[in-house]
Amino acid sequence: MNIGIVGLGLIGGSLGLDLRSRGHRVLGVSRRQRTCEVAKERGIVDESDVELKLMASAEVVFICTPIASIAPTVKHLMVHLSPDAIITDVGSVKMPIVTAISPLWPNFVPGHPMAGTAQTGVDAALRNLFVDRPYVLTPTDTTPKSAVETIAQLAQSLGSQIYQCDPQTHDRAVSWISHLPVMVSASLLDACRQGETDVAVMELAKQLASSGFRDTSRVGGGNPELGVMMARYNRSELLRSLYAYRESLDDLIGDIEAENWPGIQQRLEATSQLRPEFTQGL
Amino acid sequence: MNIGIVGLGLIGGSLGLDLRSRGHRVLGVSRRQRTCEVAKERGIVDESDVELKLMASAEVVFICTPIASIAPTVKHLMVHLSPDAIITDVGSVKMPIVTAISPLWPNFVPGHPMAGTAQTGVDAALRNLFVDRPYVLTPTDTTPKSAVETIAQLAQSLGSQIYQCDPQTHDRAVSWISHLPVMVSASLLDACRQGETDVAVMELAKQLASSGFRDTSRVGGGNPELGVMMARYNRSELLRSLYAYRESLDDLIGDIEAENWPGIQQRLEATSQLRPEFTQGL
Repeated sequence: MNIGIVGLGLIGGSLGLDLRSRGHRVLGVSRRQRTCEVAKERGIVDESDVELKLMASAEVVFICTPIASIAPTVKHLMVHLSPDAIITDVGSVKMPIVTAISPLWPNFVPGHPMAGTAQTGVDAALRNLFVDRPYVLTPTDTTPKSAVETIAQLAQSLGSQIYQCDPQTHDRAVSWISHLPVMVSASLLDACRQGETDVAVMELAKQLASSGFRDTSRVGGGNPELGVMMARYNRSELLRSLYAYRESLDDLIGDIEAENWPGIQQRLEATSQLRPEFTQGL
Repeated sequence: MNIGIVGLGLIGGSLGLDLRSRGHRVLGVSRRQRTCEVAKERGIVDESDVELKLMASAEVVFICTPIASIAPTVKHLMVHLSPDAIITDVGSVKMPIVTAISPLWPNFVPGHPMAGTAQTGVDAALRNLFVDRPYVLTPTDTTPKSAVETIAQLAQSLGSQIYQCDPQTHDRAVSWISHLPVMVSASLLDACRQGETDVAVMELAKQLASSGFRDTSRVGGGNPELGVMMARYNRSELLRSLYAYRESLDDLIGDIEAENWPGIQQRLEATSQLRPEFTQGL
């Protein structure tokens, strides 16, 4: 199959490595000439160019740009494509993308491969990045079944676990397990930054911090652009889970104020029992 | 030196192993006969008994019971001790212990070795558990300097990093880096448990959860008794840091509601810059 990839960063580059090794012909586009060259040298693509017209012969195109560029990229890409080409994307929020692109290109299959590392860019591309990782497809009622099937088979060939649901269910689920944790964790660091008036206390706290603080603060101390992207593109679902979180927090604060120790014991027993349902297989 | 240890769990047992290996004679007391026997067999103690009168010849006694039993244990122990014996403890909150014990026994040196594993009990005792870990001493104005010096030297001999501060500074610092993260993390799990009405969303969320959720939820899904202990014994300092946390969370929610993306970018840049100050050397 002739497969196009627009955006040759960690995800796009890793897709290229794997898809070529499965026998596909991979055409890659990046805005930067240097990235095109590196992608060629590293065996990520068969051909690369800074111009979207390279995609003319592609049967499937993966849009792997940052989320803000996905819809504009599709608009520029459309004029170069054969009308039966399938477009898919790898954006981590689906509703705004589906809303923008589905009316433009009927053969659009919204997707979200949930894999990554802390690195970015073409140099970070890795073989087998998607093995045993979830790959979520969020077709709408009007997405052609055959297009969904094509993308599902490609994702399967990467070793991914395929999930299929509507875009809103996806956005709600990732809000709970990915976007909310970032905000909860960032607020812990923010409270340490702004909430302590006694300098000696915070200096000692920094010395004494251990694995518990390290783990709880990890995702909140990560890439700021990613956090803004989550808040911006998944705003309503994130607010929905943040309101629920604030209610849980307020209940706990209320129990501590009221010295309701049996209530807190019960609550912590419930959280301790629930956690393994999220961490099975991790 | 003749050193007593009351409570032969993970901390007491590990202290026994290290102190014996440094040439001290270790006397251990546990409420349970079986624990006394295991401690003897494992080389944790030279002598062990279920009765506190074993401590009569001790020059220093480490109280390593759960926090609720520290003050009652000291009251029962006092009648058996030589008046110049030093009592120290390993409780993870210091104000309530200092308040209860300092009036009873002038030679009391409050302490907190910050080490541990997920295991508990005498079978979990390990050599070198305290190496490179903080050991905080929180003497008051009336604690004899020589007693503090004796405990500091013993802690140093374990390979610990010694910190000294007043009890309230300790309790505030551990609230920020240990107790607040537990409550923040538990509330994330609690919100997932109670905040989602759509069963399909939460089922998908459990499937998709990855390292971010795993790390952010870790300490909140841990031992419920430990969490209750933190809330109960460090209540006022924990509430203080929880109120600051709620303010940070509300600010962030407000910025998302107002679509203040530059504000969120700034906030996340600040948290990303701050985090390494807590995780140096981890």
